[in-house]
Amino acid sequence: MFSKVLIANRGEIALRVLRACRELGIRTAVVYSTADADSAAVRLADEAVRIGPSASRRSYLNAAAIVEAARKVGAQAVHPGYGFLSEDADFAEICADNGLTFVGPPPHVMSVLADKSAARALMSRAGLPLAPGAVQPAPTAVDAAAVAAEVGYPVIIKAAAGGGGRGMTVVRDPAELPRAYARTRAAAQAAFGDDRVYVERYLTDARHVEVQLLCDSHGNGVHLGTRDCSVQRRHQKLVEEAPAPGLSPATLDAIARTALHGALDVGFTGVGTVEFLVDAEERFHFLEINCRIQVEHPVTEMITGIDLVHEQFHVAAGTPLRWRQQDIRLNGVAIECRVNVEDPDRGFAPTPGRLDRFVPPGGPFTRVDTHGHAGYLVGPYYDSLLAKVAVWAPDRDMALSRLERALGEFDISGPGVCTTIPFVRRVLDDADFRKGRHSTGLVDRLIAEPIPAHPRRKR
Amino acid sequence: MFSKVLIANRGEIALRVLRACRELGIRTAVVYSTADADSAAVRLADEAVRIGPSASRRSYLNAAAIVEAARKVGAQAVHPGYGFLSEDADFAEICADNGLTFVGPPPHVMSVLADKSAARALMSRAGLPLAPGAVQPAPTAVDAAAVAAEVGYPVIIKAAAGGGGRGMTVVRDPAELPRAYARTRAAAQAAFGDDRVYVERYLTDARHVEVQLLCDSHGNGVHLGTRDCSVQRRHQKLVEEAPAPGLSPATLDAIARTALHGALDVGFTGVGTVEFLVDAEERFHFLEINCRIQVEHPVTEMITGIDLVHEQFHVAAGTPLRWRQQDIRLNGVAIECRVNVEDPDRGFAPTPGRLDRFVPPGGPFTRVDTHGHAGYLVGPYYDSLLAKVAVWAPDRDMALSRLERALGEFDISGPGVCTTIPFVRRVLDDADFRKGRHSTGLVDRLIAEPIPAHPRRKR
Repeated sequence: MFSKVLIANRGEIALRVLRACRELGIRTAVVYSTADADSAAVRLADEAVRIGPSASRRSYLNAAAIVEAARKVGAQAVHPGYGFLSEDADFAEICADNGLTFVGPPPHVMSVLADKSAARALMSRAGLPLAPGAVQPAPTAVDAAAVAAEVGYPVIIKAAAGGGGRGMTVVRDPAELPRAYARTRAAAQAAFGDDRVYVERYLTDARHVEVQLLCDSHGNGVHLGTRDCSVQRRHQKLVEEAPAPGLSPATLDAIARTALHGALDVGFTGVGTVEFLVDAEERFHFLEINCRIQVEHPVTEMITGIDLVHEQFHVAAGTPLRWRQQDIRLNGVAIECRVNVEDPDRGFAPTPGRLDRFVPPGGPFTRVDTHGHAGYLVGPYYDSLLAKVAVWAPDRDMALSRLERALGEFDISGPGVCTTIPFVRRVLDDADFRKGRHSTGLVDRLIAEPIPAHPRRKR
Repeated sequence: MFSKVLIANRGEIALRVLRACRELGIRTAVVYSTADADSAAVRLADEAVRIGPSASRRSYLNAAAIVEAARKVGAQAVHPGYGFLSEDADFAEICADNGLTFVGPPPHVMSVLADKSAARALMSRAGLPLAPGAVQPAPTAVDAAAVAAEVGYPVIIKAAAGGGGRGMTVVRDPAELPRAYARTRAAAQAAFGDDRVYVERYLTDARHVEVQLLCDSHGNGVHLGTRDCSVQRRHQKLVEEAPAPGLSPATLDAIARTALHGALDVGFTGVGTVEFLVDAEERFHFLEINCRIQVEHPVTEMITGIDLVHEQFHVAAGTPLRWRQQDIRLNGVAIECRVNVEDPDRGFAPTPGRLDRFVPPGGPFTRVDTHGHAGYLVGPYYDSLLAKVAVWAPDRDMALSRLERALGEFDISGPGVCTTIPFVRRVLDDADFRKGRHSTGLVDRLIAEPIPAHPRRKR
């Protein structure tokens, strides 16, 4: 096992990785930007290295500064967390060139999978069902329109290099397509430095179901069951649940096996996720593979008892998997929600500010991952995720009650600060959601609905 | 199920009960003293009733005020938590007389079990092995000396009405016995209004092992495995673990079955614990039965997935048990430590004060139960328990690493405030403890040892 690791991230995921290191007896160094000088990860790490100013382009996205920090502290490996450089094959390559183990799949695998269009082609070849659409990017608006006409509207235009829910446009009317095509290309160029886009059928009334994978570097892999992440605002997840509810065991099993087959086929290693859309007839369609730890990994940890970040380090160190598929037991139901500092009533716009009060929930079967604390300044520089609250219960009804209980006791306030908690509580109250019959359209429907006039009873 | 419950306690256990109520859809009213007017339980409960000034004798021990509060809010049941009136059969009786369900065993069962001497006699009759000693109280110092001479020194003199580690004196030298006898009687009279004491052999180098029971009101019961609580200061527990380590599976099974047999034999219902001392040869000796939820219940919840406070309400509502013994699975290892506001270097004296910072640990497989928060005033009125930190892992080594990690990130400070965290970390570092070979003498040994001169590396 490594004796020292550099954590190349911030916020709750930097803490999450730090916790795993400490539990494995690995010394830690964490990088930080000016804005994060007083962060919990900086306070807790064995060492901390400032790598640049607050803007992430000059700090958490600055590959050279991160590699230099690793060299300076004598780290043997770099854990990239999620976001930032976690899916950047070039960064993985630079790490390797500098004798650092990048905690993730080999660069050539990352490189292929980061190109969603290429991943689609590979997975199709491996036999995974795709949503109707073109495997290749659409070089012109006319090509895009041709694909759209063939698969039928609505369609979604996606950046080939996209990720994290960015660089996607839904088009419902053929007349809108040329403008949407141009806009998505421009956005993709700006966000990812790559303007290739592709077109697929936009499945409405579908669920977002993903499969957690764990594969070693010796060709062994297991799946750790499914998660439902259909509750999304702007293609970013708000509520996540394991296992995915409302689907037959046969469908869940087929999705999980299919995902594992596809990932092993492309040489995937480490911890990753294969995402699918599942339609009302329980047909599933491959979306993309993520080759990093995901924000929502705690729910899988809670139903399996497996620490996924520990496993990332074990795989990166070359340890063979300690489980066969038949050893994996999925126990109960876990649900997580994201507590973002943003205002659902203003299009989920961030509302940065200082937190006067911050009292997280606790108690039975309740997990909180957060870098927040009383007095913490939520800055404007990074994404608005402040905390994740996850609960476990033997069954889904109790998990919902428990999450509602936990959110009800979360006491956060500060001048101008809003959180997604009230909105998530509306989700948990929704009749479709309670029945496990919700789809990716849920958030838009709730936004359109009037907010219940009578305040909820105090809970 | 009840529609409204009165919570007759404070601190973390009031919150714990409140959480269970919320999850079960039960409305809550909590009582509070002047000192607790701003407490988390008061903030979160549906209703709160002030029952008296800060001194517990006039508030949390004031049975009449509590029953009046229950009547006022229209509660159907009273949950007493632990401590205070939780094992007071008279209070249970008063509740019954006022049409309130007391969440606990029937008053006549409590009454017998609260008398440790009587409980010893009953358990002996049910076939449970006792530590050598007299079953009856010793009415004079001469009687006490006779028992001591027969069983051999050291002996322990215990208040028949004792509990919570109070009213016990260890005697190593016959010459000390008369004075110790008189002192223990006086202390018992002062603390419990009952000066009866009894004498038993004091087992050194023994472990404190207890069994969690769950029995319904229809004669069914299961045990939920064992806990080791050998790490005690002044007979009060500091670190608790499930299942008990370092004992053979056959011994653990025998202890658990014996405990269940004894409890069912005396008509025990609800959630309770049978405590044993286990000597170096793995012989076990009955100590006492507690007929309430225990401080250390989270570790059992973590290895069974069963919410014990939910079950208390189900039993109190007359629901038959939903498990047979063969349905109970013990999974992995859970360890809890108590974070008390006291100074281990000054005999664990309380160090009340205001908390400037209070950032609890979080993350994977980590549970925190606390009423504390930044700005909280730890008063001088009640016991010094501020938080419980419990972790789960598949095996004991990882559970120890995880607890060490969690304690290392707990950030508590305030003028004059000390906590037991540094001391507990010494326990976790102890070679005997790590091997699971510690006994109830561990804390005294650590107190006597010089504190490691070199500060631990930052963790």
